[in-house]
Amino acid sequence: MYRSRLGTDLSDITLDYVSSINDDSEIALYDILGSQAHALMLFQQNIITNTDAKKILSALENLKNEKFDASSGAEDIHELIETLVIKKAGMASGGKMHTARSRNDQVVLDIRMKIRDDINIICNCLLDTIEALVSVAKNHQKTIMPLYTHLQQAQAGLFSHYLLAHADALTRDFERLFGTFERINQSPLGAGPVGGTSIPIDRHSTAKMLGFDGLVENSIDATSTRDFVAEYVAMISILMTNLSKISEDFVIWSTSEFSFIELSDEFTSPSSVMPQKKNPDILELTRGKTAEVIGNLTAILTTVKGLASGYGRDLQQIKSSIWSTSKISISALLILKSILLTLKVNEKQMKKVTESSNLIALDIAEKLVQEGIPFRVTHKISGALVQLAHNLKKPISKLSLSEIKKSVADTKVDPKIVSKIISSTTVVSSLKDRKSFGSSGYDEQKRMISDRTLKINQYRSDVLQRENKINACIDDLKKQVKAII
Amino acid sequence: MYRSRLGTDLSDITLDYVSSINDDSEIALYDILGSQAHALMLFQQNIITNTDAKKILSALENLKNEKFDASSGAEDIHELIETLVIKKAGMASGGKMHTARSRNDQVVLDIRMKIRDDINIICNCLLDTIEALVSVAKNHQKTIMPLYTHLQQAQAGLFSHYLLAHADALTRDFERLFGTFERINQSPLGAGPVGGTSIPIDRHSTAKMLGFDGLVENSIDATSTRDFVAEYVAMISILMTNLSKISEDFVIWSTSEFSFIELSDEFTSPSSVMPQKKNPDILELTRGKTAEVIGNLTAILTTVKGLASGYGRDLQQIKSSIWSTSKISISALLILKSILLTLKVNEKQMKKVTESSNLIALDIAEKLVQEGIPFRVTHKISGALVQLAHNLKKPISKLSLSEIKKSVADTKVDPKIVSKIISSTTVVSSLKDRKSFGSSGYDEQKRMISDRTLKINQYRSDVLQRENKINACIDDLKKQVKAII
Amino acid sequence: MYRSRLGTDLSDITLDYVSSINDDSEIALYDILGSQAHALMLFQQNIITNTDAKKILSALENLKNEKFDASSGAEDIHELIETLVIKKAGMASGGKMHTARSRNDQVVLDIRMKIRDDINIICNCLLDTIEALVSVAKNHQKTIMPLYTHLQQAQAGLFSHYLLAHADALTRDFERLFGTFERINQSPLGAGPVGGTSIPIDRHSTAKMLGFDGLVENSIDATSTRDFVAEYVAMISILMTNLSKISEDFVIWSTSEFSFIELSDEFTSPSSVMPQKKNPDILELTRGKTAEVIGNLTAILTTVKGLASGYGRDLQQIKSSIWSTSKISISALLILKSILLTLKVNEKQMKKVTESSNLIALDIAEKLVQEGIPFRVTHKISGALVQLAHNLKKPISKLSLSEIKKSVADTKVDPKIVSKIISSTTVVSSLKDRKSFGSSGYDEQKRMISDRTLKINQYRSDVLQRENKINACIDDLKKQVKAII
Amino acid sequence: MYRSRLGTDLSDITLDYVSSINDDSEIALYDILGSQAHALMLFQQNIITNTDAKKILSALENLKNEKFDASSGAEDIHELIETLVIKKAGMASGGKMHTARSRNDQVVLDIRMKIRDDINIICNCLLDTIEALVSVAKNHQKTIMPLYTHLQQAQAGLFSHYLLAHADALTRDFERLFGTFERINQSPLGAGPVGGTSIPIDRHSTAKMLGFDGLVENSIDATSTRDFVAEYVAMISILMTNLSKISEDFVIWSTSEFSFIELSDEFTSPSSVMPQKKNPDILELTRGKTAEVIGNLTAILTTVKGLASGYGRDLQQIKSSIWSTSKISISALLILKSILLTLKVNEKQMKKVTESSNLIALDIAEKLVQEGIPFRVTHKISGALVQLAHNLKKPISKLSLSEIKKSVADTKVDPKIVSKIISSTTVVSSLKDRKSFGSSGYDEQKRMISDRTLKINQYRSDVLQRENKINACIDDLKKQVKAII
Repeated sequence: MYRSRLGTDLSDITLDYVSSINDDSEIALYDILGSQAHALMLFQQNIITNTDAKKILSALENLKNEKFDASSGAEDIHELIETLVIKKAGMASGGKMHTARSRNDQVVLDIRMKIRDDINIICNCLLDTIEALVSVAKNHQKTIMPLYTHLQQAQAGLFSHYLLAHADALTRDFERLFGTFERINQSPLGAGPVGGTSIPIDRHSTAKMLGFDGLVENSIDATSTRDFVAEYVAMISILMTNLSKISEDFVIWSTSEFSFIELSDEFTSPSSVMPQKKNPDILELTRGKTAEVIGNLTAILTTVKGLASGYGRDLQQIKSSIWSTSKISISALLILKSILLTLKVNEKQMKKVTESSNLIALDIAEKLVQEGIPFRVTHKISGALVQLAHNLKKPISKLSLSEIKKSVADTKVDPKIVSKIISSTTVVSSLKDRKSFGSSGYDEQKRMISDRTLKINQYRSDVLQRENKINACIDDLKKQVKAII
Repeated sequence: MYRSRLGTDLSDITLDYVSSINDDSEIALYDILGSQAHALMLFQQNIITNTDAKKILSALENLKNEKFDASSGAEDIHELIETLVIKKAGMASGGKMHTARSRNDQVVLDIRMKIRDDINIICNCLLDTIEALVSVAKNHQKTIMPLYTHLQQAQAGLFSHYLLAHADALTRDFERLFGTFERINQSPLGAGPVGGTSIPIDRHSTAKMLGFDGLVENSIDATSTRDFVAEYVAMISILMTNLSKISEDFVIWSTSEFSFIELSDEFTSPSSVMPQKKNPDILELTRGKTAEVIGNLTAILTTVKGLASGYGRDLQQIKSSIWSTSKISISALLILKSILLTLKVNEKQMKKVTESSNLIALDIAEKLVQEGIPFRVTHKISGALVQLAHNLKKPISKLSLSEIKKSVADTKVDPKIVSKIISSTTVVSSLKDRKSFGSSGYDEQKRMISDRTLKINQYRSDVLQRENKINACIDDLKKQVKAII
Repeated sequence: MYRSRLGTDLSDITLDYVSSINDDSEIALYDILGSQAHALMLFQQNIITNTDAKKILSALENLKNEKFDASSGAEDIHELIETLVIKKAGMASGGKMHTARSRNDQVVLDIRMKIRDDINIICNCLLDTIEALVSVAKNHQKTIMPLYTHLQQAQAGLFSHYLLAHADALTRDFERLFGTFERINQSPLGAGPVGGTSIPIDRHSTAKMLGFDGLVENSIDATSTRDFVAEYVAMISILMTNLSKISEDFVIWSTSEFSFIELSDEFTSPSSVMPQKKNPDILELTRGKTAEVIGNLTAILTTVKGLASGYGRDLQQIKSSIWSTSKISISALLILKSILLTLKVNEKQMKKVTESSNLIALDIAEKLVQEGIPFRVTHKISGALVQLAHNLKKPISKLSLSEIKKSVADTKVDPKIVSKIISSTTVVSSLKDRKSFGSSGYDEQKRMISDRTLKINQYRSDVLQRENKINACIDDLKKQVKAII
Repeated sequence: MYRSRLGTDLSDITLDYVSSINDDSEIALYDILGSQAHALMLFQQNIITNTDAKKILSALENLKNEKFDASSGAEDIHELIETLVIKKAGMASGGKMHTARSRNDQVVLDIRMKIRDDINIICNCLLDTIEALVSVAKNHQKTIMPLYTHLQQAQAGLFSHYLLAHADALTRDFERLFGTFERINQSPLGAGPVGGTSIPIDRHSTAKMLGFDGLVENSIDATSTRDFVAEYVAMISILMTNLSKISEDFVIWSTSEFSFIELSDEFTSPSSVMPQKKNPDILELTRGKTAEVIGNLTAILTTVKGLASGYGRDLQQIKSSIWSTSKISISALLILKSILLTLKVNEKQMKKVTESSNLIALDIAEKLVQEGIPFRVTHKISGALVQLAHNLKKPISKLSLSEIKKSVADTKVDPKIVSKIISSTTVVSSLKDRKSFGSSGYDEQKRMISDRTLKINQYRSDVLQRENKINACIDDLKKQVKAII
């Protein structure tokens, strides 16, 4: 049944191989905006006439609403748009659109405009998700749960503490992307094919019109470096690994065996036979999509490794990796936020598991430390207590004084002190006593939640400022275009 | 001959499998410093006595000069150091060293201290290499060379312009690492196994003693997140791809066929039969080592993807990837700097190739644009001229008026104007005319070199400030330790 | 302008996130065939009635020509097809289609059928490309060229030898894929969701109907292991790296500086200003697409690493990586074959470079070895000769006896012997003398070409046999279906 | 504290950068054996004299017991060994050792010999581990456990079935490596630097002496292709992902919440406070090491991608990735085997969980199917039953007839039939009824165990034959060497 595929005309296969037109719908609008800014600048610099500018800008404006035909035979969107402009504006004017320009600076302009918008979107999504984590944490400052290391219960803790841990990790993701934006939002426009131009263009002017914060000055660098793409996708890869960790936790906590949480119906897929079961498919997909983004990063780094300077067509291939990376991260964040806000938390089960696990042993050890007994000794005592309780199938709190005596036999510690500490220690007392900065004690939750709430607001305003600047520039560009056409 | 390997005692294989002791020599000193700061704080908080502190600090101080024995049977450096301290200080005091501490916050402290030092070293190496690029560029502002796209000659350019392109790329690498440092230099110390402690430690105090700029507050986050490692290795991966691109260029330019450059003997390996040949092995190794660093990044991201929260032993495995990444990048930068400073540039050959390639065709097209002829038309004319010259096996400049006439036949352009432009255009005139910001024109070289020189100085002072702060803290810590022991 | 995207209804975003319907068009036909075989078997086992079978098979047959609507709201093709069958055949019969089946064995069946067909296509493409390499080699058994190590000229050689090197590498790729096929072409059908079924199905029967060579027996293994996908994509990754090497060579040889080859116009993109220049974009894309396939492999391995047993939705995400991997490799091979068959080889330039490079120095050294002089000594002599010739700017063959005397000064070798050897050694004589098995001597070319031609024919017949077997089974299935409906 | 590192002499840094001497201890013995075979052949071909051969072979034989000094200043083991031979045998004879040889064919010979031995070891380890899986399965053919999809309980099953699933996956790993061996065990010796030699060597003779099954004929291919390395590491990557899946399962099953298994003490690390807890660190490390091997594969593929033909020094860098890959997989297999053989299985808990989860619902649905009711309808009924039972907090088996009536309300199914089926269905009856080929029914376990046992024996004999052949050749080589020295 595949003979047909092999029989396809070679020229079609070749065109499909070299063409990026299917990937280019994502940047069509950026290409038009960039071309408008360039044409406007050419006019302001007296390189093209008012008539030329009017015709070019008008043709481009019309294209904004056009649905581009991928089967046009054009290799990419830049060629297609220029062809359409020349068709509408005539060669005499339209043929001037690409004055002092090259596909090499054009494509990288579009990619930068696309990524900077994606970063702003993702930053907003991140803040939404962080806010969701903090808001759920607010409701679970008293929700006791076991904290794990090696997936083994390790210490008593609070669910809010868990949520805040991830809020903090995502805040770093925000900061990373916020920093990356600075290197993205630099204009390569006007760099030409590789070495610049003798035509008296004004690169600062186009940069300003398009809302850039500066220039990628050196024309070789501007056209042939894709480090900014690798940086962006690396930052998203890290963000996705953070999301994949929450996903893993939630998948495990959704098992019948753990039963800590229940996802809302809209985010699970039911089994037809087991309607009460809820498969956490969507979280598994977040893990799977994380792997895809890591693959995208590998592809990009492998592409640019050892590439000779000057634009090489290898670079065309990385575009689809960028789009897929952006789309995955935006969706994953939107979905996680909603999962969090609709999550059913099984507080009883969490508490029951915590209390039945002798997790207070560590707290007892710490209280003994405060009696001046060396940490390594107190740990040994706690260990002996836990072991004995385990063997006797009762909780530590039910150990008799003579049993405690046995546990401290090798040490010089007074069993009565131990007994007193045991009887005064519960999971709740332990979480009251837990006071180290950033710990899972009760007091720290309150402090951290209030602190994070302030931070989110600050970050929101930072992103808004960036968005507003770009929007204002683009609006202004539109007005200037309107004024001419 | 391998039977023996299979015959090895299983417990040895197991120990080797779980042990990180061989990788830990890189962090032994950090572990000691961290333990000293912690012990000092415990004393200041009245958690341990003066005697305890004295004994612990003194034992740790002695260990600074110790060469650790990897065959000790210890699983890692933390265990080994504590064992040695207890041996020297006795259990009564030494057993208190780990009060309110865990291997989980300890190992991540050490890694952070190691990476922050590595970043400072790499930042210095980067500035050295950038400086080398700029200083060589200074000597080659008039060195004409062809610029390439697709490895095809594309425009006339200057060697300085090429060097500055890479200086700018490496400057972004610097900026990236400089930004990453902020997220690295945060103290996780005191986070405990996962949930903090009830012992009244002062995390801010230890952070300050060790020169950190802040805390990784949340104890779950502090102990189980390795996003900062992924970020660091991602930044280095990008840096290495930038170095691999210079390497690729230089390998190609070192061929007999290109003969643009000659590497100094110390960076080539001679063939025994072809002593005049110089194999650019070291640049090939930089490409190969770039691949290794990309592999390290893949390994790290793949490790943390989908890992449940709370420390997991998987994380131990990434340590060697960090060390190898740091070492490779430091060496690669040191070597590239020296290669640049000892490079022999074959200016004659570069110029000859540039002049014999009709690269001025694009400049002629641009001059015609400035006569009001649409870009697409001038390109067609230039193309016709080049094609004709190519067929007639002479340079464009030798075309007769009637030959020029033929080339403009389809257009309304006056052949005399074309002829005049041809006769006034040379590679040198073209590079004088090339004036767009960041272009490869003569004037831009001067401006860019002077600008980059200022920037380097600013960056040097920024790094120095960071180094000084850390050094001052560590010195102060030493003094405090001295005062007690 | 992106607010709209963020405003999209969450349920749409969620559906898009979990849906694989866009990726599933590649396997729709396989899904139908698999369902037909399953229904047929259910009937033959008396699990469903003749009427049920007729209705189901007929509905499925109709769907073969259907263009599936991705916007149907179905999560995947399996659900969509079942829905359409129930719609056409009614619940009473259509509701039986999935008897003793699960999406978990269904999806893996489709993937296996898709990959086995892709392997057969790729095997054919590989043989076509290998044949092209051998046929071009046949025409270039006397085409002298320099062989390179470290991109430095190293030995005189023949272009046919170069081409045969790649023919041999691609032959290994063929063998690898041919071996992988055996593990792919095993039927998972009937494994159920994870643990099999109590309904008396006949898994061997469906396997036979669908042309499989055997079963993936264990139902947990059959539904949740994707090692066969990783194996397939790994094999293609290796194949692509082999293609990327030829691409790199050809890109370099297409430079003005090398000028060894010229690609046919249909495989280059011209520069508008430099019509005589031909950018080898398509080969650059092969390099770039190689990176993409490596990224796909990373994504797949990262997905399956550490996945709990039993189907997990993470696995859905890898499907698009498989399709893209297949498509890239098929196109890359088809294009490379055509590039080879239309390649213009600049034999004069290759020969000129070879002869002007003193590459016979190594041959002289080998002739001296045959006079009983130690290899390390003869190398030193050759080195001295080359160095002297290089300094005097003449070829070795023009060195005078007294000059030769100088070169052998440190040794006991008779300069007259050296002189005699020099005067009898040319590039051509050297290639006549080169006789080691698999070397680039003249004789070996003939032998290798004739041997490879035989091999290709054998492999062609092996692939054909496989294709025929599958086609015969599928044809037979069609007939059985026809007989019932 | 790092100034010192930066202050290191550049030539030391450079040597360290280019040197592979530290990685080469793994291949020293292979290098000696290869050199002995080569020298022997040179003698047999009358290229060197008996005296030369005697001196060279004797010097090489002495080196077998030498511990090489990495600080010798040699760049690699080949150079070091030749230097030592010349030192011992004198230049007159020792200087002939490298006659008709090059480092380029030498290094690839050593790598091939190393990998072929590693494959044989790993094949044996794989068979040991498969045997362990089967032998544990034999003891657990009646051990009931829930089977999972999406980590949700999906069907009742048997522990043996789970173990056999992994035995089958590892058997494919065995088959893959067994196939890869054929492409590894081909001799590149005699290919020279890139183009072969005019000295009348006999490549078939050395290949035979060293136990190879054939030649990598084409000398360019032999020296510059590393596809066989990528293939080997890809195969191990897949093997490791299979091990990582068992690890993930066992980590989850070791939690307090699951409590299905308990690892033997020697493979867990205790917590000092929670002595009854056993951290499954070693399995976490297997996951982490899997990531490292995937990183190795990425590094290797990224290295060879786009590399020009002919040996390039980039290839040196991949050696350490090979060694680490081999070592990891051998240890991981040895450890897993022992973990399996010492595993404590909590059969009671597994059974309890299975029985309390209404997992028989699917079996009930299948029995209804056998009454002629469409699958989709029976699933709906089962779903209704499970939901009702879930709401009433009782098992399905305790539902009254009137409750059952409610559940079938929408269908035409007779509630009595449903009731009868419910009362006759238990987990045990279900596993008796489960009869599809490869299912988790009781009967299938027996069949599969017996079948796998036979297979293992066959594979053992296949590997032994290979090992014997190589050993016999190497022994014979030793005898020939002895006869001369």
